Amino acid sequence: MINVAINGYGTIGKRVADAVSLQPDMKIIGVSKTRPNAEAYIAKERGYPLYIADISKKQAFVDAGIPVAGSVDEMIQCADLVVDATPGGVGIKNRELYEKHTVKAIWQGGEDHDVAGFSFNASCNYEEARNRQFTRVVSCNTTGLCRIIHAVEERFGVKKVRAVMVRRGADPHVIKKGPIDSVVLDPVSIPSHHGPDVNSVLPHIPIVTMAMIVPTTQMHMHALTIELAQDATREEILDIIKAHPRLGLVKKTTGIVSTAELKEFVMDMNRPRSDLWENGIYEGSVSVVGRELFLFQAIHQEADVVVENVDAIRAMAGDVLDGATSIQITNNALGFVAL
Amino acid sequence: MINVAINGYGTIGKRVADAVSLQPDMKIIGVSKTRPNAEAYIAKERGYPLYIADISKKQAFVDAGIPVAGSVDEMIQCADLVVDATPGGVGIKNRELYEKHTVKAIWQGGEDHDVAGFSFNASCNYEEARNRQFTRVVSCNTTGLCRIIHAVEERFGVKKVRAVMVRRGADPHVIKKGPIDSVVLDPVSIPSHHGPDVNSVLPHIPIVTMAMIVPTTQMHMHALTIELAQDATREEILDIIKAHPRLGLVKKTTGIVSTAELKEFVMDMNRPRSDLWENGIYEGSVSVVGRELFLFQAIHQEADVVVENVDAIRAMAGDVLDGATSIQITNNALGFVAL
Amino acid sequence: MINVAINGYGTIGKRVADAVSLQPDMKIIGVSKTRPNAEAYIAKERGYPLYIADISKKQAFVDAGIPVAGSVDEMIQCADLVVDATPGGVGIKNRELYEKHTVKAIWQGGEDHDVAGFSFNASCNYEEARNRQFTRVVSCNTTGLCRIIHAVEERFGVKKVRAVMVRRGADPHVIKKGPIDSVVLDPVSIPSHHGPDVNSVLPHIPIVTMAMIVPTTQMHMHALTIELAQDATREEILDIIKAHPRLGLVKKTTGIVSTAELKEFVMDMNRPRSDLWENGIYEGSVSVVGRELFLFQAIHQEADVVVENVDAIRAMAGDVLDGATSIQITNNALGFVAL
Amino acid sequence: MINVAINGYGTIGKRVADAVSLQPDMKIIGVSKTRPNAEAYIAKERGYPLYIADISKKQAFVDAGIPVAGSVDEMIQCADLVVDATPGGVGIKNRELYEKHTVKAIWQGGEDHDVAGFSFNASCNYEEARNRQFTRVVSCNTTGLCRIIHAVEERFGVKKVRAVMVRRGADPHVIKKGPIDSVVLDPVSIPSHHGPDVNSVLPHIPIVTMAMIVPTTQMHMHALTIELAQDATREEILDIIKAHPRLGLVKKTTGIVSTAELKEFVMDMNRPRSDLWENGIYEGSVSVVGRELFLFQAIHQEADVVVENVDAIRAMAGDVLDGATSIQITNNALGFVAL
Repeated sequence: MINVAINGYGTIGKRVADAVSLQPDMKIIGVSKTRPNAEAYIAKERGYPLYIADISKKQAFVDAGIPVAGSVDEMIQCADLVVDATPGGVGIKNRELYEKHTVKAIWQGGEDHDVAGFSFNASCNYEEARNRQFTRVVSCNTTGLCRIIHAVEERFGVKKVRAVMVRRGADPHVIKKGPIDSVVLDPVSIPSHHGPDVNSVLPHIPIVTMAMIVPTTQMHMHALTIELAQDATREEILDIIKAHPRLGLVKKTTGIVSTAELKEFVMDMNRPRSDLWENGIYEGSVSVVGRELFLFQAIHQEADVVVENVDAIRAMAGDVLDGATSIQITNNALGFVAL
Repeated sequence: MINVAINGYGTIGKRVADAVSLQPDMKIIGVSKTRPNAEAYIAKERGYPLYIADISKKQAFVDAGIPVAGSVDEMIQCADLVVDATPGGVGIKNRELYEKHTVKAIWQGGEDHDVAGFSFNASCNYEEARNRQFTRVVSCNTTGLCRIIHAVEERFGVKKVRAVMVRRGADPHVIKKGPIDSVVLDPVSIPSHHGPDVNSVLPHIPIVTMAMIVPTTQMHMHALTIELAQDATREEILDIIKAHPRLGLVKKTTGIVSTAELKEFVMDMNRPRSDLWENGIYEGSVSVVGRELFLFQAIHQEADVVVENVDAIRAMAGDVLDGATSIQITNNALGFVAL
Repeated sequence: MINVAINGYGTIGKRVADAVSLQPDMKIIGVSKTRPNAEAYIAKERGYPLYIADISKKQAFVDAGIPVAGSVDEMIQCADLVVDATPGGVGIKNRELYEKHTVKAIWQGGEDHDVAGFSFNASCNYEEARNRQFTRVVSCNTTGLCRIIHAVEERFGVKKVRAVMVRRGADPHVIKKGPIDSVVLDPVSIPSHHGPDVNSVLPHIPIVTMAMIVPTTQMHMHALTIELAQDATREEILDIIKAHPRLGLVKKTTGIVSTAELKEFVMDMNRPRSDLWENGIYEGSVSVVGRELFLFQAIHQEADVVVENVDAIRAMAGDVLDGATSIQITNNALGFVAL
Repeated sequence: MINVAINGYGTIGKRVADAVSLQPDMKIIGVSKTRPNAEAYIAKERGYPLYIADISKKQAFVDAGIPVAGSVDEMIQCADLVVDATPGGVGIKNRELYEKHTVKAIWQGGEDHDVAGFSFNASCNYEEARNRQFTRVVSCNTTGLCRIIHAVEERFGVKKVRAVMVRRGADPHVIKKGPIDSVVLDPVSIPSHHGPDVNSVLPHIPIVTMAMIVPTTQMHMHALTIELAQDATREEILDIIKAHPRLGLVKKTTGIVSTAELKEFVMDMNRPRSDLWENGIYEGSVSVVGRELFLFQAIHQEADVVVENVDAIRAMAGDVLDGATSIQITNNALGFVAL
């Protein structure tokens, strides 16, 4: 059993904790919170030992009826591996702590590549993570781009990628962030950071990305065009998607043409937290014009990296399995059913 | 076993179907759809026999990989009771069908009181539903109002109720309805229909309601003031809420101050479809000023009537249990845990 | 001529500047900005001398093609009166500066009553502002409440006011503030600060307010109930509204039932910045039930205090006119046409 | 003087009416409405004679205090040219009427190309409209695309255009249309109709467009990439934009990075209805990578076609001026000042 600690039990951390718990070869030994809020109640409900960064705040937790197991420092000493799911920019500050305890650590895409010196996607570079001390799981958008680009490249080669990312303004439960009624260029300059971030996993892909933020909470949407190195048919592309364990095909017959309807469908499937772990590629959009592939894909910002974290844990722990097998174990443990 | 058919497997129907399935004394014998869309896939996934109103459309379902069990007419012949969850205004047109087959039927609050001649809320008038052929479960907002008003009235008496309902513009998966950036008075005239609708369950309550629609998908919010007939303390009101099986108290220590955070909390509790079946009363808002009670409550439009439908089925089937026991059975079957 | 400086040329400041410019007895001698952004271009376009708080930033303005007239300190020395329209909480820090220069100053409702020791609304207490050094114009919501409550009180007496304020989440151009899809109780506790704030102008009115924030940018909406001391008819209330220079009646025949449609109507009237300076009371909502008045009113958060600032300037400058006359001059100068 | 009638005094019609009124060589002889709503009040306020399609509804207008000049049929008999600004799909039904009266007519982009057999953009094909009886002004998005593509093509040649249009869900005053919280693929299939529509004006341009709808009311946003036939520098592209009478450059120094901030800036410029008639191209986004141009442009859906209608009128009336001169006259009459 790999003993995993979650440093930062928030939007990503709470999902990784539940996903890890379901794996046959992993165990959650603790999670951390800074405040005794709603998520702390959930940690208690789930039976995850709760650790806190600032032990002087212990009384506030106790007053709220939430037992505290100890400090984050103590949690880390019990762990084989820490998943750092603290907010972007905070994770880097924890690096020294992980080095001190010589514990393995995974950071999220909110940190720069340099935090770990290695950026991970299970479908692209699982082998390179094996036995590493430090790994960074790339962001939700980069994860979604890497999966489809790599899958297409393996079969047909990729000459150039152009992607426009229409990003959700805030996660569904976030009430202070906007915009309420605007399209915000983020950044206004071109390219956005997503292209270079894809190159941290797939260095050889020529890619230009443009990004904006819109007033929605339910998933990002990618408008993606890929110039192929060889001729391909629409059906061949659909076959690649159907065969891929982390690419989901939103069937035309479902009538789903939006992120909201897709979220409802995943909710109706009884997935935990209505999570879409795979890319949501709209079948009706998949088009090949000349040697260029066009498609729309929805990326569930809270979910797609969760399964990547699980695979990264397995690879870093030195498992002898290959990536495809790890992905299969992860997916099966979560009860993955195709869209 | 009570054999239940769901006529209209949509937002409410699919939830009632799952809730009925979990009850020890009920069984789903069929659900109906008009088109082979995403929800039809879910019905198939759940193993609910799927019936269609217009049997000439059978091939479209078959082509989409969805087997059809028969016509709605056939479904009704197998049922002890039909839950009509068709869109508002459509249900009334089915009345003749239910009469023809002398099957018991429940309508939703989108229909007028006259559709059944009896409007139901399990906490208020369970006994009156016993052995009835026809019942109408009042709308989500009316359900939420009836629960709290009746509970307060039983203990302290109610002299006057004023309620402002700030309603969600559309359910989360609905993409065509707005508004996008506006507050819409619906209706602009005062009172709104909600006050009279409360009176269909609680005829003696003096109540004036005002209603508007805002650009959100996550729950309605009620700003409620109740003039009491007797002195009461805040603590006594909180005790009433805590003791009530369908009034939930959003604890101040959770830090939750919005509908979105409340939805996330319910999602984290692993409730099916993140459903809040009870009123979400914000502890921090419960205030008594003189002889007047003020509070905010969130009402999950897709969920609170679901449990009421289940209780209505039980009462109409002639069960000898009382309302409190039925509510307990319903709640337990769903795995209800207090907020 | 009253020489007016605007400290803080933002959402409110830029509107007050233009309104002051149109008055026959006032003149803008300068406006201040902290950064050379879009609004600084507008100040230049309008010909308002631009002053900056931190003179070391002068080069940044010059580089952007925007001339700088001097420091805020210098601006204040040229002014008879400063309208402080800096962000809430910043204004109080400028008090010392205004005292040092013994200049008259007006703050906005984002500051507490104590900043000036006097809270102003032209329709309620114009006389009390005469010759004062310091005045606070109450916030948009409080202004809207004071106008209608005072007008009703003068004629019929007021026993109790209950108001639910459904507030816009952010101004139309603000892109970082939310919520995107939530109703936020702000505050969750009852009463909100608006009731006490009304009492800073109308101390004797018994009022309880509840407030929430919703994802819209176009105006606040008030659901208002007023218990009257005497009998009144709906027509008498409508007459009060029609006769009042700062209460606007949204006629039923316009078909307008929302904030968005009202904003469009004001835009179509060619008002500067589509500003609604008066309360937007929906004719169709005005109802009298027993001795209680119910109505909905839209409050344009960016606009209604603008005209109040102009009247406050006139009163503080020691004009011998009465409030009604000042209001008339202000309105006429802006080309006020009834809705 | 060209006598112009506006058939359909709504979002576009009311703007064209005001723009026409300001032209030295045109006159509004009447506008039409179907209901006596807010816009009918505005027509009265502006002094435009109001005609109605269904004369039997005259009394309803009179009751609302709005005088009726006659029937639409009568209006058309007085006109040299009709601008048909009825809702998309309605305009085609009026064609017979215009043929009967042998009046010139302009349709909007909501109609198909075939309605007139000629699709117009003043910067691209002014000459071809001269003396025509029927012309279609292309939609707001197509107008915005044609302007920039044609301008770049004239100088550098265009090999391929890829555009992703992120469209506003509804106009600001529209309260029934959504989505509230979703990205909607509209259409889900690729290409969207915008590419072919560009080809109705610029037949030789290879272009693929993808389109989606998001929950905002303030402008569309285009993410545009243009493969050039020749080398170009960023500065050369900026010079093209600055020199073009209908391409606006949103300067980097303004700090504007969104549609909402841009709308506020245009509002602050005191433009009627805060209208942005030109493309809003973000200076900070204009990038040349190899032989490919990337940029973001905001398109004000209510405004950019208004000026095109004016130019179309002038060309169709047989004016001897060339397009550049007409554009200049139109812009000057509106008081166009560069962003």
